[in-house]
Amino acid sequence: MKIIILGGDGYLGWPTSMDLAAKGHEVLTIDNYSRRTIAMQSSSEGLIQNPNLEDRARIFESLTGKKIQVAIGDLKNFSFLEGHIKSFQPDAVVHYAEQPSAPYSLKGYEEAHYTLKNNLEVTHNLIWAILKNKPECHIVKLGTMGEYGTPNIDIEEGWLDIEHKGRKDKFLFPRAAGSLYHTTKVLDTDLLWFYVRTFDLRVTDLMQGPVYGLSTKESDLDDRLLPNFHYDDIFGTVVNRFLVQAVAGVPLTVYGKGGQIRGYLNLKDTLQCIDLALHNPADKRELKIYNQLTETFTVNELAENIQKAGKTLGIDVAIKSIENPRREAEEHYYNPKHTGLIDLGLEPNYMTTEVLANMMKFVMNYKDNIDETKIFPRVKWSK
Amino acid sequence: MKIIILGGDGYLGWPTSMDLAAKGHEVLTIDNYSRRTIAMQSSSEGLIQNPNLEDRARIFESLTGKKIQVAIGDLKNFSFLEGHIKSFQPDAVVHYAEQPSAPYSLKGYEEAHYTLKNNLEVTHNLIWAILKNKPECHIVKLGTMGEYGTPNIDIEEGWLDIEHKGRKDKFLFPRAAGSLYHTTKVLDTDLLWFYVRTFDLRVTDLMQGPVYGLSTKESDLDDRLLPNFHYDDIFGTVVNRFLVQAVAGVPLTVYGKGGQIRGYLNLKDTLQCIDLALHNPADKRELKIYNQLTETFTVNELAENIQKAGKTLGIDVAIKSIENPRREAEEHYYNPKHTGLIDLGLEPNYMTTEVLANMMKFVMNYKDNIDETKIFPRVKWSK
Repeated sequence: MKIIILGGDGYLGWPTSMDLAAKGHEVLTIDNYSRRTIAMQSSSEGLIQNPNLEDRARIFESLTGKKIQVAIGDLKNFSFLEGHIKSFQPDAVVHYAEQPSAPYSLKGYEEAHYTLKNNLEVTHNLIWAILKNKPECHIVKLGTMGEYGTPNIDIEEGWLDIEHKGRKDKFLFPRAAGSLYHTTKVLDTDLLWFYVRTFDLRVTDLMQGPVYGLSTKESDLDDRLLPNFHYDDIFGTVVNRFLVQAVAGVPLTVYGKGGQIRGYLNLKDTLQCIDLALHNPADKRELKIYNQLTETFTVNELAENIQKAGKTLGIDVAIKSIENPRREAEEHYYNPKHTGLIDLGLEPNYMTTEVLANMMKFVMNYKDNIDETKIFPRVKWSK
Repeated sequence: MKIIILGGDGYLGWPTSMDLAAKGHEVLTIDNYSRRTIAMQSSSEGLIQNPNLEDRARIFESLTGKKIQVAIGDLKNFSFLEGHIKSFQPDAVVHYAEQPSAPYSLKGYEEAHYTLKNNLEVTHNLIWAILKNKPECHIVKLGTMGEYGTPNIDIEEGWLDIEHKGRKDKFLFPRAAGSLYHTTKVLDTDLLWFYVRTFDLRVTDLMQGPVYGLSTKESDLDDRLLPNFHYDDIFGTVVNRFLVQAVAGVPLTVYGKGGQIRGYLNLKDTLQCIDLALHNPADKRELKIYNQLTETFTVNELAENIQKAGKTLGIDVAIKSIENPRREAEEHYYNPKHTGLIDLGLEPNYMTTEVLANMMKFVMNYKDNIDETKIFPRVKWSK
């Protein structure tokens, strides 16, 4: 398959690029280093210094003999994006190219404006570049479980059959996200669904939970192939953040009551899911939606699991509730369905104590890089 | 009240500006002539030459003694918008400032990109200008009934109580619009609802049906105070378009089967609704939603009503179905609830044969201005 990865320098984009190239696909990966730039600007650099995308692709090729084509540029520039769609003629595009930080998206007007503009315009440019140059191309879009928020009813996979006053129809499952970043993904879904049903696009939207982990078959070859690993309040997802706090001897920062439940996913399973989505493409005029998670935990349960994993390594991990910088329900119902990808063949890698302990050992190798000032929340969900 | 009107040069923005100024409110009206520019560029000028916004405000003041402050500028420029919010300190902002043409929004990439960017960025800039400078200000946003599309269940006013597998929650009524323009209003609703529940904004979203009419108390003073009146395929709403076709002796162009049902509204009722919304503001952290229409017709019924009105004036009106340039259901269920504004005191002006005949007489005064090349659809809903 000929596959373009948008946002190929990201935490998921880079492992995906390697995985697909290793499997023999022809891969072009595109990025503008937006996350690296924001990380510098907000003093939120990751634990590890990652070589840039072109260097990583060269290292990967030297180790595996597999080529990853790289293009550096801004996808808000339509002619840049369209040029690549036109010349590469992809069978599929995997679209990760969004500003992914919830706290950043609410830091102030400039950050909010950038997040809205970047995420919507890139998605919209992709839609038109596909419509005009390769309308049969399958778009695999990364959404987020955060689009749904925490409704008081079971979360179905993307859609909901509604019976109202004796009549029936099927709609997108209602969405009500908890940050502007997550809201831009709701807007993406609305946009994609409009173009799917009106202009016959083929789209799969993966509603992904927070991802954790570092180890993939390819990154295990050489530490220079590792994905970025953020533990700060801006880009750090909660599991990665807690692991670094545990190693640094900082109490795990639980926001508020810690009863927030989310659906989690191992990085290895993200790769499986992308692969399954690519091999089971949406039809013309079809929007396929999967809930991409393998298990759910409260934040308190997560913290306790990491405490347990610490114990196996002789590390004493403390847990401390801090004032919640976010406006969110701290105790709520949460029951998301997630059988679609399992039915396609997903074999989950669960978050066992061993998995957590192995990640913790990995973080210990980079302990000297930990900067404790990056750990505490700097952005509040209110003006 | 101190009120800012965004999009004050528009079909609704200008009559609203006059109406509120006439009632003694302090009014600042802002526009960047985006619609006039697009109308020129797409050869879609209206039936009547309207003086520019500053000239109209001067004429209005000379006739009534009431002042309308005018600012010309682009609301995508945050510092321009914020400057006015900061210095004027409005109690309410009425937000009409969007690219409002469905066909234009799908003409090509540039037009689609402009519509998405303009509509979303202006709404988002307004949100932040209010949050930072006058958080208690009430935003009255013009949405559209088109956000809902044509679902197979009754359309409630903005919200839907859902019972699913024995549990209950309340959500935004599902939306699935028929054009990119209408989809940008869906995105606006999502954005506003996020900021309302997370940052305590006060918003009323008016889901308005197609508006018809010209005559308002103020425009009756002088033809130079008339709102713009489009009859072309880009900006002309269906009733206004049919009236001009009737006068020009062109068969009324029904798209496809003509069974499309929409909810209509007299321009005078739009003014009433805005007034009611302003006097019944949303609370902090409340998104009030009203369905703003007074009666529903199929396109065929509309055409027949205009035929009848023609007969009373001795005009023989023909009706002709043409190939539907849009992708839409031509026969469908449609039952929108619209009691919220009635409960607040709305007294509807219905679309009687007399009302239609009076509009037709008005159009006859400008018969020489009619350009028949503007009447037929130039944009198709497919690539």
